[in-house]
Amino acid sequence: MQGVGQQAKLAAQILANTETSIKNNALLRIAEVMLERADWLKAENAKDLAAGRDKGLDAAMLDRLTLTDKTIAGMAEGVRQVATLADPIGTITDLSYRPSGIQVGKMRAPLGVVGIIYESRPNVTVDAAALCLKSGNATILRGGSEAIHSNQAIAACVRAGLEAVGLPAACVQVVETTDRAAVGELLRMAQYVDVIVPRGGKGLIERVSAESRIPVIKHLDGICHVYIDDQADLEKAVKVAVNAKTHRYGVCNAMETLLVAEGVAAQVLPILAEEYAAKGVELRGCEQTCALLPACVTATEEDWGTEYLAPILSIKVVADMAEAITHINTYGSQHTDAIITENYTRARAFLRQVDSSSVMVNASTRFADGFEYGLGAEIGISTDKIHARGPVGLEGLTSQKYVVLGDGHIRA
Amino acid sequence: MQGVGQQAKLAAQILANTETSIKNNALLRIAEVMLERADWLKAENAKDLAAGRDKGLDAAMLDRLTLTDKTIAGMAEGVRQVATLADPIGTITDLSYRPSGIQVGKMRAPLGVVGIIYESRPNVTVDAAALCLKSGNATILRGGSEAIHSNQAIAACVRAGLEAVGLPAACVQVVETTDRAAVGELLRMAQYVDVIVPRGGKGLIERVSAESRIPVIKHLDGICHVYIDDQADLEKAVKVAVNAKTHRYGVCNAMETLLVAEGVAAQVLPILAEEYAAKGVELRGCEQTCALLPACVTATEEDWGTEYLAPILSIKVVADMAEAITHINTYGSQHTDAIITENYTRARAFLRQVDSSSVMVNASTRFADGFEYGLGAEIGISTDKIHARGPVGLEGLTSQKYVVLGDGHIRA
Repeated sequence: MQGVGQQAKLAAQILANTETSIKNNALLRIAEVMLERADWLKAENAKDLAAGRDKGLDAAMLDRLTLTDKTIAGMAEGVRQVATLADPIGTITDLSYRPSGIQVGKMRAPLGVVGIIYESRPNVTVDAAALCLKSGNATILRGGSEAIHSNQAIAACVRAGLEAVGLPAACVQVVETTDRAAVGELLRMAQYVDVIVPRGGKGLIERVSAESRIPVIKHLDGICHVYIDDQADLEKAVKVAVNAKTHRYGVCNAMETLLVAEGVAAQVLPILAEEYAAKGVELRGCEQTCALLPACVTATEEDWGTEYLAPILSIKVVADMAEAITHINTYGSQHTDAIITENYTRARAFLRQVDSSSVMVNASTRFADGFEYGLGAEIGISTDKIHARGPVGLEGLTSQKYVVLGDGHIRA
Repeated sequence: MQGVGQQAKLAAQILANTETSIKNNALLRIAEVMLERADWLKAENAKDLAAGRDKGLDAAMLDRLTLTDKTIAGMAEGVRQVATLADPIGTITDLSYRPSGIQVGKMRAPLGVVGIIYESRPNVTVDAAALCLKSGNATILRGGSEAIHSNQAIAACVRAGLEAVGLPAACVQVVETTDRAAVGELLRMAQYVDVIVPRGGKGLIERVSAESRIPVIKHLDGICHVYIDDQADLEKAVKVAVNAKTHRYGVCNAMETLLVAEGVAAQVLPILAEEYAAKGVELRGCEQTCALLPACVTATEEDWGTEYLAPILSIKVVADMAEAITHINTYGSQHTDAIITENYTRARAFLRQVDSSSVMVNASTRFADGFEYGLGAEIGISTDKIHARGPVGLEGLTSQKYVVLGDGHIRA
């Protein structure tokens, strides 16, 4: 691993100073090579699938692991899209003259070496490599052992793209061992690695956070709320509350708890219950909710802090916005929370007072996403406050250094 | 310490939503109280000084520890200046419509709770408290045991200011124990503390970095370089190289190594040697430098990686800019590095290729400073790449959350 780190550090210095067109050409070539080698990628993937079946992986895991012509085409298209994004590196902002006569501004620079630790979805290999490459960072990728053949095959396509434009292969390294100790070593190589991005289940994220001696950009839970205010337009409220829960269930920006103001609960909850029933969503409510909805079971204290990632919704009737915000700040995961209201003052207050990475007024929590926000792509959604918060795109993989221009200026 | 953390977390929620004028009034009152209680502050300080003398603290340490009418007036003035700075909290930027119809922007929010660990300069207590207060963060301050009476006295002034405007005293807490274990506990309270800012010597910074389970904004070394290019205006070069080394010696943005292009070394080094000799600066050079300067002693490998913080300068003759950049990226501390050149292409290349928190053209490294950059004040200079890099002002103590405004928008 030390050798991997050293090589990445050297490659990062070259990549930081590589012109945009060369990085883009590498990306376009990677996409081509993946399509050219689609049959081989599927053959390598078949080895992982066979081993997975022997190991007794469940159907959902095997499904996430499977590469098809369609998923390969999707990965290639994703890489091509990263090539079309604006290159953040070298952008100078806020360049202005100071009273001393010097000009001071900020220039965007890569972080350096990004370590990505992820589970068995092979598409992460190429997604993450593409975003890091475009943002001028060298990458060390460490995927799950279940996907080792698929990941190595994708890595070969990436190397072919890098070599086609004369970039060192060490710009993107996929760790070849499945040894668990290698992760521990990666997390302690602070002299070579500038940031760690874990992608996967809660167990992985918690292990990485606990062990890492390197800054981590992480996404933990998505316990998202929608609060229906008593001054909400109830038609909008129903539309958003249904979309936020049922558009997709297994995603971090799905609503997990619905909060409803007392004043409109009797009016709006039965309508919503009917919609949820039609979609097979199980409801778990507070006492007041259960009194209004016969099909609702009583929620426990644990429900308020649970990310279901499933067709289950907890519902709580609250006195007012203040109680809703207290509930969100107590049980939420600072991911994404929305208010539905027509009241100007409450909309303003909610935006300011809710301490989450995305705070919304009259919009579905499902919008919390790098593509929807215009970042072009995302490496993850950060629930941290330091460095990057919310969807992390190319900019989240960079930092800013100060540039100072003078004409022989000295400090008096 | 757990109680301190809990109280800070609660105070942070209040402070995050406190209007600018209230925060400013608290700051102005703190400044007034410090001046009103100047005699008492000096009396409390005298207890620390007496204990310090008994303990055998050296003159420089006792000097840094001493409060006088002048230093108290200076601290009060610093607090007043923070009140005049623009409040970053709540600022919304980049609010724009997306194709889906939602409006997406970023709002600046406090980090939450900032833990400051510092050594025996009591002025840090009030400086840090003022910056954190203005940026809406609750603060836990843990100063050195040598300054415990002074720090507690200053903390009492801060509390008086907070109480005068109705803010909880827990917005700024100065830890009362000098127990070393308390620092360790603070560094592990990730559930209450959002970021740690250590201020002090290298030993302290290294201990905090190694032990902290919380993100750290740190400043380690300042091994700053000036490179005199063979296309430099030598008059500017001499002016800047003298200022960068001799304006102040014990500061992190002072030049520690001078790099000179071979083509101008024989011309410029003797002039510089005379200037440095007049100021009593000891020169340690590479072979080529020593051949040109009789008074120069030979530099060892260790010299290139040393932050002297003293009237000592290492000098190396290099073939060209490429060698200078390699030297900087090898031995530097990514703090501040400058090129002196009239060549447009090299100026551009240096700015892009040098991976330091401040990169300069034809200006003294001494400008790397929050006040000089227009930040108004600084809590430190970060040599990290994550979150904040270079001088850290109010903005470095904040993060950005996404705000989304819709009109009942749902994801299709």
